Amino acid sequence: MLLLLPTDKYTKLMPIPMQTVSEWYNEIVERAGLAEHSPVRGCMTIKPYGWALWENIQRPLDEAFRRTGHQNAYFPLFIPLSFLAKEAQHVEGFAQECAVVTHYRIKTNPETRNVSIDPEAALEEPLVVRPTSETIIWDAFRGWIQSYRDLPLLINQWANVVRWEKRPRLFLRTAEFLWQEGHTAHATAEEALQEALRMLDLYEEFVQEYLAIPVIKGRKTPNERFAGAVETFTIETLLIDGKALQAGTSHFLGQNFARAFDVKFLNAQNELEYVWATSWGVSTRLVGAVILSHGDEKGLILPPKIAPIQVIIIPIWRSEEERASIVSKAHEIAAHLRAKGLRIKVDDDPQHRPGWKFNEWELRGVPLRIALGPRDLETDTLEVAWRYTGEKQTYPTQEAIQRIPEWLEATQLALFERAKARIQSQTHVVDSYAEMRDILEKAGGFILAHWDGTTETELAIKEETGATIRCIPFNTNPELGKCIYSGRVSQQRVLFARAY
Amino acid sequence: MLLLLPTDKYTKLMPIPMQTVSEWYNEIVERAGLAEHSPVRGCMTIKPYGWALWENIQRPLDEAFRRTGHQNAYFPLFIPLSFLAKEAQHVEGFAQECAVVTHYRIKTNPETRNVSIDPEAALEEPLVVRPTSETIIWDAFRGWIQSYRDLPLLINQWANVVRWEKRPRLFLRTAEFLWQEGHTAHATAEEALQEALRMLDLYEEFVQEYLAIPVIKGRKTPNERFAGAVETFTIETLLIDGKALQAGTSHFLGQNFARAFDVKFLNAQNELEYVWATSWGVSTRLVGAVILSHGDEKGLILPPKIAPIQVIIIPIWRSEEERASIVSKAHEIAAHLRAKGLRIKVDDDPQHRPGWKFNEWELRGVPLRIALGPRDLETDTLEVAWRYTGEKQTYPTQEAIQRIPEWLEATQLALFERAKARIQSQTHVVDSYAEMRDILEKAGGFILAHWDGTTETELAIKEETGATIRCIPFNTNPELGKCIYSGRVSQQRVLFARAY
Repeated sequence: MLLLLPTDKYTKLMPIPMQTVSEWYNEIVERAGLAEHSPVRGCMTIKPYGWALWENIQRPLDEAFRRTGHQNAYFPLFIPLSFLAKEAQHVEGFAQECAVVTHYRIKTNPETRNVSIDPEAALEEPLVVRPTSETIIWDAFRGWIQSYRDLPLLINQWANVVRWEKRPRLFLRTAEFLWQEGHTAHATAEEALQEALRMLDLYEEFVQEYLAIPVIKGRKTPNERFAGAVETFTIETLLIDGKALQAGTSHFLGQNFARAFDVKFLNAQNELEYVWATSWGVSTRLVGAVILSHGDEKGLILPPKIAPIQVIIIPIWRSEEERASIVSKAHEIAAHLRAKGLRIKVDDDPQHRPGWKFNEWELRGVPLRIALGPRDLETDTLEVAWRYTGEKQTYPTQEAIQRIPEWLEATQLALFERAKARIQSQTHVVDSYAEMRDILEKAGGFILAHWDGTTETELAIKEETGATIRCIPFNTNPELGKCIYSGRVSQQRVLFARAY
Repeated sequence: MLLLLPTDKYTKLMPIPMQTVSEWYNEIVERAGLAEHSPVRGCMTIKPYGWALWENIQRPLDEAFRRTGHQNAYFPLFIPLSFLAKEAQHVEGFAQECAVVTHYRIKTNPETRNVSIDPEAALEEPLVVRPTSETIIWDAFRGWIQSYRDLPLLINQWANVVRWEKRPRLFLRTAEFLWQEGHTAHATAEEALQEALRMLDLYEEFVQEYLAIPVIKGRKTPNERFAGAVETFTIETLLIDGKALQAGTSHFLGQNFARAFDVKFLNAQNELEYVWATSWGVSTRLVGAVILSHGDEKGLILPPKIAPIQVIIIPIWRSEEERASIVSKAHEIAAHLRAKGLRIKVDDDPQHRPGWKFNEWELRGVPLRIALGPRDLETDTLEVAWRYTGEKQTYPTQEAIQRIPEWLEATQLALFERAKARIQSQTHVVDSYAEMRDILEKAGGFILAHWDGTTETELAIKEETGATIRCIPFNTNPELGKCIYSGRVSQQRVLFARAY
């Protein structure tokens, strides 16, 4: 295992080569049992521990969508090729990464046991495996929307999507990934824009509160917009290796898809108008964001709100006589904690020694560990260890049981604060292109710099440094300056970074 | 809307032509807002009300899997063609209905706006969209299983699968459908067989308790087995049109997939052995089963345990002055019922009249309706109507609020009993082939008849009558008899029916 950020329990940072983090990431994802590569290039298998983590992200998010009036539905996996083509920018944006279904039958040869495509079973029109569902959904919306009374239509879908990937990374970039995609229809541009911003706020709140990941909200530049959107809003974060990650996006689609799929509504004045649209999504890459926001040299550190196991209890015995009473006490404590609604596991597996278990559950990022030995049984105490600081302390059993919920809450907040301090220390206000290049080469990070607003400059910087404009942040004061690249006038600093 | 079964509120049946039920079904699914056909042949869009129903099936089932020690995971959508071929029977079984991905990119022509497959982006090996996941999962299990300590491995996956369909029916037969597929690995044949039977029992209990659908458990004949299974167990039900539906299956796979994918474990004696397997699944076709088990001429009748709305409250006002107080009272009652954990909706939409709402929520199958008019406000009463019997009665508000949970429970049980009585009346013990054909032609139904145990006879009967052996039921006494077709000796009656 490799030495890794953060080097102390709070915020001090040690610049490390990105390659090192990359190896650490692959190793942790595999050893912690989160996911593995599948034999199909770019696709991943999400293992039970990784799935449990995703479920703990998915469920509160789903609840949040319900509270904001959205309804779940499900649209087909396959999209006719001609549908994609209906929105010109959309198809340009996704053409390079579409998996295409061309046949609906295979042939087997019982003698050779060879299997091949049946050439006689070619589809009349090829089907694309959805890379996103705007086209198939807006085709359906045409039948769902007649008048202003049918609006707003607030739909969400949990689904798998496929975008062919040349350089896959587990969770962060996979050909198939799981996500939710919200698709809403509105009577006015204002209302649709408000919806797009409302969902961006919801994402910000959720990611910060549940994943303990600080994000910066902003709008994408035209060049970085979703294909087919009028505006793309984003939440961006920065990971321990100094690379940025787009954690969620929300799009104001204008009337682009309504026009492409001829979706009109009768307004209150009895006139036909095209409908206004939004779409927004977050995906399994959030799991990657969690790993690369909080992890350290011992492995994962999971925020308590989404940790599949919040407290691991490890009974320690020296002899078989001791074992029964210790294990029984461990389960008793577990029952008390479960009664408080906590997710608890007792690791009483006799095959492994306590030291092995300590390492294992640290690797898997469990926020709190309780160790319970023969001495503790006598004194009715237990040892509590905090994963994120490594601190340990002995408490009377009752006190620990009572205080564990508050310790978990405190851990959740502390992880957020620690990540925030880290990101602040990795964020650089820069006024010279040379300095920007230097920072990017050394440790990466967010760079707040002036930009002249042209795609030309944006692409030149990307070409020369690998950094992109992550967003034009919402919450910064207007500040007149000079573009770091062209020297032309600039109204506001924008956020640059190399990104996943 | 068509006149339909059952003709009275309990069990009397009116034989009706299957074609009529078929039209009724299509109409109900669409008008109740459950699902619709998508432009991709055979695929469906599940609309919010249909999705809510599926979620109410999915959630308790998922809980039941957890309670029985199963863990969720997620495996890739795509399966390399060569994987399917590794288990000879498996590939034979699914070859005819596989969607095949052959390319990973499309080309756009900006001038003509034409879109086509990029011939240079052909995959080296074509990929099949999973029709079921045994092959990709057993390929992964090879890495997950080393010794007997890794067993049993109890995995479940919620996923979409694709099996090309020539004659699609919404929910009952769609090219893409949603399901769960359990995949387990065991050290012994006995344990795997027990697991397959345990999950069959779980399905039986769930479908009967939550969906109020009586089922008959049994084993499939060799001819009807899952491709690659040693034994297939099934729960079969009979729908209002006299056609059978396979509601869930559980397979004992022996060592077939372990051999095909070389999955061995070191047993306690330190010897390498092939692993034993099961798989089992239920799908969105259960939604179709609910519709065709309980529906009547007015539309859906949903069992309270899975109904997205358990009680619909319809306030009735004559004037604007009345409206505010009535609507407020309706919401007050709703709050009391929600506090009991019930799913309640108040339909206070001023655009529709009460009569329209009554019809609408009957069509959508809401188990209980509360109507609340100006007179009720004076007397602090309300009118309760039972969807499944059509009965109505006025109660003091407090009494109704208190008793609604028990009424819902009673409705759940009554629906089950009614369906059971219906199926009993549609089940025929038959000793002559002529009688069997006559029954099948007239009203369909389950036919318990002797069979000589040969695939030859089974196929001849299928060819001549369209009926298949649904299962060899578990819970029947051995009974010596003569095969209805061949006259040869038979040990037990088996269950024939025409099926979906």
